[in-house]
Amino acid sequence: MDLAKYQVETLGECSIESPLKLPVSSGAGMAGYVSDSVRIHARIECQEDSSESPVTLEKAGPRAKIYFRPGYTRAAIVTCGGLSPGLNNVIRSIFMQTYHRYGVKTVLGIRNGYSGFNPKSKHKPMLLTPDIVDRIHTMPGTILGTSRGAEDPKIITDTLEREGINILFTLGGDGTLKGLHSIWQEIKRRGLKIAVVGVPKTIDNDINFVYKTFGFDTAVEEAKRALDCAHAEARSHPNGIGLVKVMGRDSGFIVGYAALASRDVNFALIPEIPFELKGKNGLFHHLEKRLKARNHALIVVAEGAGQHLMGNALAEKDPSGNPRYLDVGEFLKSKIQEHFSGKGIQTNLKYIDPSYTIRSVLPNANDSIYCDNLSRYAVHAAMAGKTDLVIGQWHNVFTHVPIELATAQRKTIQPESTLWLSVLEATGQPAGMHHRPT
Amino acid sequence: MDLAKYQVETLGECSIESPLKLPVSSGAGMAGYVSDSVRIHARIECQEDSSESPVTLEKAGPRAKIYFRPGYTRAAIVTCGGLSPGLNNVIRSIFMQTYHRYGVKTVLGIRNGYSGFNPKSKHKPMLLTPDIVDRIHTMPGTILGTSRGAEDPKIITDTLEREGINILFTLGGDGTLKGLHSIWQEIKRRGLKIAVVGVPKTIDNDINFVYKTFGFDTAVEEAKRALDCAHAEARSHPNGIGLVKVMGRDSGFIVGYAALASRDVNFALIPEIPFELKGKNGLFHHLEKRLKARNHALIVVAEGAGQHLMGNALAEKDPSGNPRYLDVGEFLKSKIQEHFSGKGIQTNLKYIDPSYTIRSVLPNANDSIYCDNLSRYAVHAAMAGKTDLVIGQWHNVFTHVPIELATAQRKTIQPESTLWLSVLEATGQPAGMHHRPT
Amino acid sequence: MDLAKYQVETLGECSIESPLKLPVSSGAGMAGYVSDSVRIHARIECQEDSSESPVTLEKAGPRAKIYFRPGYTRAAIVTCGGLSPGLNNVIRSIFMQTYHRYGVKTVLGIRNGYSGFNPKSKHKPMLLTPDIVDRIHTMPGTILGTSRGAEDPKIITDTLEREGINILFTLGGDGTLKGLHSIWQEIKRRGLKIAVVGVPKTIDNDINFVYKTFGFDTAVEEAKRALDCAHAEARSHPNGIGLVKVMGRDSGFIVGYAALASRDVNFALIPEIPFELKGKNGLFHHLEKRLKARNHALIVVAEGAGQHLMGNALAEKDPSGNPRYLDVGEFLKSKIQEHFSGKGIQTNLKYIDPSYTIRSVLPNANDSIYCDNLSRYAVHAAMAGKTDLVIGQWHNVFTHVPIELATAQRKTIQPESTLWLSVLEATGQPAGMHHRPT
Amino acid sequence: MDLAKYQVETLGECSIESPLKLPVSSGAGMAGYVSDSVRIHARIECQEDSSESPVTLEKAGPRAKIYFRPGYTRAAIVTCGGLSPGLNNVIRSIFMQTYHRYGVKTVLGIRNGYSGFNPKSKHKPMLLTPDIVDRIHTMPGTILGTSRGAEDPKIITDTLEREGINILFTLGGDGTLKGLHSIWQEIKRRGLKIAVVGVPKTIDNDINFVYKTFGFDTAVEEAKRALDCAHAEARSHPNGIGLVKVMGRDSGFIVGYAALASRDVNFALIPEIPFELKGKNGLFHHLEKRLKARNHALIVVAEGAGQHLMGNALAEKDPSGNPRYLDVGEFLKSKIQEHFSGKGIQTNLKYIDPSYTIRSVLPNANDSIYCDNLSRYAVHAAMAGKTDLVIGQWHNVFTHVPIELATAQRKTIQPESTLWLSVLEATGQPAGMHHRPT
Repeated sequence: MDLAKYQVETLGECSIESPLKLPVSSGAGMAGYVSDSVRIHARIECQEDSSESPVTLEKAGPRAKIYFRPGYTRAAIVTCGGLSPGLNNVIRSIFMQTYHRYGVKTVLGIRNGYSGFNPKSKHKPMLLTPDIVDRIHTMPGTILGTSRGAEDPKIITDTLEREGINILFTLGGDGTLKGLHSIWQEIKRRGLKIAVVGVPKTIDNDINFVYKTFGFDTAVEEAKRALDCAHAEARSHPNGIGLVKVMGRDSGFIVGYAALASRDVNFALIPEIPFELKGKNGLFHHLEKRLKARNHALIVVAEGAGQHLMGNALAEKDPSGNPRYLDVGEFLKSKIQEHFSGKGIQTNLKYIDPSYTIRSVLPNANDSIYCDNLSRYAVHAAMAGKTDLVIGQWHNVFTHVPIELATAQRKTIQPESTLWLSVLEATGQPAGMHHRPT
Repeated sequence: MDLAKYQVETLGECSIESPLKLPVSSGAGMAGYVSDSVRIHARIECQEDSSESPVTLEKAGPRAKIYFRPGYTRAAIVTCGGLSPGLNNVIRSIFMQTYHRYGVKTVLGIRNGYSGFNPKSKHKPMLLTPDIVDRIHTMPGTILGTSRGAEDPKIITDTLEREGINILFTLGGDGTLKGLHSIWQEIKRRGLKIAVVGVPKTIDNDINFVYKTFGFDTAVEEAKRALDCAHAEARSHPNGIGLVKVMGRDSGFIVGYAALASRDVNFALIPEIPFELKGKNGLFHHLEKRLKARNHALIVVAEGAGQHLMGNALAEKDPSGNPRYLDVGEFLKSKIQEHFSGKGIQTNLKYIDPSYTIRSVLPNANDSIYCDNLSRYAVHAAMAGKTDLVIGQWHNVFTHVPIELATAQRKTIQPESTLWLSVLEATGQPAGMHHRPT
Repeated sequence: MDLAKYQVETLGECSIESPLKLPVSSGAGMAGYVSDSVRIHARIECQEDSSESPVTLEKAGPRAKIYFRPGYTRAAIVTCGGLSPGLNNVIRSIFMQTYHRYGVKTVLGIRNGYSGFNPKSKHKPMLLTPDIVDRIHTMPGTILGTSRGAEDPKIITDTLEREGINILFTLGGDGTLKGLHSIWQEIKRRGLKIAVVGVPKTIDNDINFVYKTFGFDTAVEEAKRALDCAHAEARSHPNGIGLVKVMGRDSGFIVGYAALASRDVNFALIPEIPFELKGKNGLFHHLEKRLKARNHALIVVAEGAGQHLMGNALAEKDPSGNPRYLDVGEFLKSKIQEHFSGKGIQTNLKYIDPSYTIRSVLPNANDSIYCDNLSRYAVHAAMAGKTDLVIGQWHNVFTHVPIELATAQRKTIQPESTLWLSVLEATGQPAGMHHRPT
Repeated sequence: MDLAKYQVETLGECSIESPLKLPVSSGAGMAGYVSDSVRIHARIECQEDSSESPVTLEKAGPRAKIYFRPGYTRAAIVTCGGLSPGLNNVIRSIFMQTYHRYGVKTVLGIRNGYSGFNPKSKHKPMLLTPDIVDRIHTMPGTILGTSRGAEDPKIITDTLEREGINILFTLGGDGTLKGLHSIWQEIKRRGLKIAVVGVPKTIDNDINFVYKTFGFDTAVEEAKRALDCAHAEARSHPNGIGLVKVMGRDSGFIVGYAALASRDVNFALIPEIPFELKGKNGLFHHLEKRLKARNHALIVVAEGAGQHLMGNALAEKDPSGNPRYLDVGEFLKSKIQEHFSGKGIQTNLKYIDPSYTIRSVLPNANDSIYCDNLSRYAVHAAMAGKTDLVIGQWHNVFTHVPIELATAQRKTIQPESTLWLSVLEATGQPAGMHHRPT
């Protein structure tokens, strides 16, 4: 992937002094502004003798000169797609930073996702105030409402123009960000000066060049709770099998991290690594071995795993344009029961689908902090006229990721990654559960 | 129900001094023994002018004279049926009280429910020791294993005889207790001196004359977590509907208490109170009104509710002899979606089934204490030669409930109870959602 | 204690039909009204041959006829003393019941305890609305504010008159309730028709004839957390001693219940049972034995325990008129360290004082339900013109307890109670750690 | 700081094939070995035009050739200093990786810190087994025991020799690691082939070139709980002031992160940034302003902050050689009360010291994963004969940090860091609360 071809867009030259009153030189006893020329190595490993030229990402942070004059600026926030722990934290922190620190007094909340831009929508944008956002970080979900599905970029841009909005903050995942890029293209086509900045939100943690999406840590914590329950069930029954399905359409990050956190998982099944049920190297074979050795087993599967086993052509689409997945949890449950009862082996399978409970809780401390940081950097970027980007974190540094780069491909677990090696070592499962080439 | 006809069985006269060394008279600065003649009013309400004769239950507690000579006594514990938070606490407290306080040095753990009494069983009884039980109260599930289903009382009694067991503690619900009563009848038929004492365990809280089963409070706490999640989902989507299914085959106690704890439920559906979907007083009608008024709604349904709506003849049985229920959660989900989409109303229904997660967690503080008390009283009863009973709690006092009384009928939510009135007031739902008589 | 002499006060005859529309006869499929003549046995144990006449408490619940005409009634709520988990739940449920169920449209919130009745107070009463109370059950603390200390009953009654308040709900403990009784006497002296009803709030759970105060369960849960931490510290250090101080001025209920829930406590020290440090039966002696046997020990002490050891004359008073206690936690910490280091025994004492953290959290599910019930019954009582009472729960039934009865003495742990016996059995500590009479 | 001068020590050439059976070339579908020549940029920011030569750290990971022959290798683990969430996870993961993956069958647990090496110690080393470590990740604390204080490196090395130990894993912080370096020097002096590898453990998160110590995230989560409680207290009382003291001797990381997570803190006081109480820019002045504006305030202070205000010469030392700190929590409590009561302003200050409760809990999911990774990398390093190093994480990559580098200075919050800027923006407190130069 050629990073060099992805550049951060800006609306134009920044000529306005930032109202943040940060020091302009070091030695002032507190952090100062970040220059556009500071960049982050995308790849921080190096061979001592390597001479490859480094690829870099633009560093996020407050700029000394900004593009928008605060007193004349109007901002808007929209939340799209499914819930993630911390949505209200992000709404609140974007508001606080924009309103109190930069002095932008008009921040609108668009209702129910992109559909809230449609004049036909039942719910009009709401004007956010300090009172409204005061305690929302103690409420799960999003006070703005959310929805899946696209809206015509022209209609959205019409509304942005009509409402005089200069900055649009969008919280969403892959589909939402692609939509935001289309909006940006429409804005550019019309020659408007509107900055659009994304905050990466997807419980699947699958956004390219974004180390971690907000709420992901919390979702792992909750998924681990379900694993602990399934483990207790499995250990308490003869030939007990705990089976847990968690979110993860194309990426198995929740499965992988929850398996690592639990330490009790024996089989972690993810979309990235196909597996077979039958045969000498299939799941059934290894599961039977495990039951013989220890009398119980724990399996965790991502919702997008094993679709090939169900003959899913993935042709049907949901309103966001994502393929509809078949239910791999119920499928595995019945296939495993069928298999063992066919062999005269009595098992006790307990199936748990925590479903939405991993994403509709309050964020843990780590995610709360992360939400706040992402929000703050989104505001810094937007005020400096940067646009068509999403705030990322890479090697613990906050960065500006061009939306096209962030959506160029989904981030997935690489079989050759140390993450996956950790999962293999923690579970003891074989590196691949498919027919070996003869 | 004529309580007077149910009497606590005893093995015979108690002639052995209790080793507990409690004071025999009051004023000694600590609690003493309880006399068999102390009884508890089953009904504590009275009209001032009423002259009805009170019915009473035998009070639990340590007796000054006991039946079994500790040094010559062998006890066993068996856990049956599904998990409940606190099983290991009960195992531990029964062991500690029997071993340390009464000096009974042989306490066996029967493996995997009643099936563990069968000599063909793979797992032999284990000898419990202080080391084994030391930290088990920090582990969910049961270290003994559990299973559903009956075992021939003759086979069980054979094993009790062969192992020289004098006392059998059984943790289980309605079916398990009925089984225990059959075992007792076989013991009596053979003229054996074996005490059988039940500790009431069912997550549904449906045991007659037992105010609350252990683990129930914790299950409500966990069910409320799922309701909180469903509520966050519902509030965050236009016309969002949260639908949560929780355990409760014949009794809606988890639904009722979780609805009261959450304060956000609009419709609580329980097996005791039939409801209709359609018509002027059906669920759909009231749900639509709610959505129009507030744009979101939260429904909680017990697994045993609404079976009549699905044409469930309840003919099929599971291994414990309980009728197999159809999945009311999936049924309601599809019927609600169908109904509203048929009327051209777009809704966002999020369905959550916390399933086993409400019962395979550690007990909360309240349940931990309750587990310990039940266990202690079970040991007092058994050592005094009392048998064919289950330990209950009634009006905050621990009692001896004859098994026949405890299993004479299932405890259910009475529509005329103040509990149900509280639920109606908390949810605002109509007292009945069925066709009114014309 | 002669219960018969305590009667529930009423403002007068109830002539108004209740707006609750409950059935007036049984068989209607839902709960109906409660007659004033239904009473609760205060003592539910009986000897079969006893002929003592039973003492009873009035049962709480909705009355068919009420005293106040809802459309013309104004109510007020005040929260006094320290926090308890669930204060906002009670405020919300009282409001919901009064406003929605009875149709009383004016419910005032008095600010910052009794001091908010003083016209000189900075904060005026606030008018509560459905919007204000909507989500307050998700916020710990009290939205009304609270404070310790009395206010002149005359000033309070002046304000009640001036504001046209007909019903005053007061959330508080012993001191607050005594204050409420004084207010009632002033009201009566003036011949006013104002009902005053208390909701029992004290984290110490020390109100007479009230089985449990709201928030107590949650406080025990939190106290157990601190015990778990102290236990981990103690077990992880050679001769580790965990020492935890929890609330409990005159009553050791939090100590007792938390010790039962933890199962790891070795010494539970409460105000009701004096103990010595030195001598053959003192704490040091038993602690040394425990350390020798197991290398670690866990102690929990109530703040009001052991005051005699510190030579506390308890002469100084705080603003609520309670004696100021010396810090028994720091005292024990230094005395234990001093003792063992004096004997050349190296110990690792870790002292934890969870202080306010046990009372400023959200209520658990059980307490949430309890808060709601207490509130609902408080409203029923007040609307029926009952006054000078506090809502209690006794043997699981809600009752009307005359304030004079509730404050006649503090509820404490009786050394002869089964509760204390449970603690002794769970901890293994001696029944008394003081010099035995020679 | 000149990183180049710090090199990872190795025992010698690695000539043994690793038993891990990882692929030796990429494209094998799973992660392979890491070459010693792969290094990590220590500084990943770059100016586009910069030509400074990069400094790097050695990357951690499994090596294809290892130094120790597993069948002949004996390892030992020791835990030193205070508790951190996850100690038992680390012990378990080191054991699992060493025993199961590398096939080292002897892993000893040294008891109670470095003192356990002393032959006079009461507790002999224990042989770890799969059964012993099976469930220890569900227990807080350390099963090995821990203690503060040094032990003569000669005595420790004698024991290492006598027990035939080839690898020593040490879990500890700054003092412990310095001790480990001394042990290494003694080992080297004697020409022994013993690898010593540290796992960074300190709740203060103050180890140089280690991004985060294990357990830190969990400690922040717990500290935030105390802040939430203090905030509820403060908001519920007129002029309520919540004051919380948390750990942090030389570094304010817990304060900083907990303040960011809570969003409710108004003043975060850390050791790195001195502050004054009085004067126009002192804490009292700003606190009074805050109370006037909002009627409540929340302060969090690190235990090591404000020592200068108490005239602490820091001359006294504890057994680990750290200076004894005075109690800044009690100091601030009394000074604030004194100040405001001196000005006739009534305040309600609630002081909470969560003390050990933030470190003696189980690790959260994130920390569990982190513990496992650190452990695994420690084993890889040791088996490859690397020594005198601590496992670090830097920019999300695991690294080998020479102990001298890790202990060259304490990691602290830099006033000019973006972390501190975030805290300033979240709290709204002034950048410095000291007398401004005139």
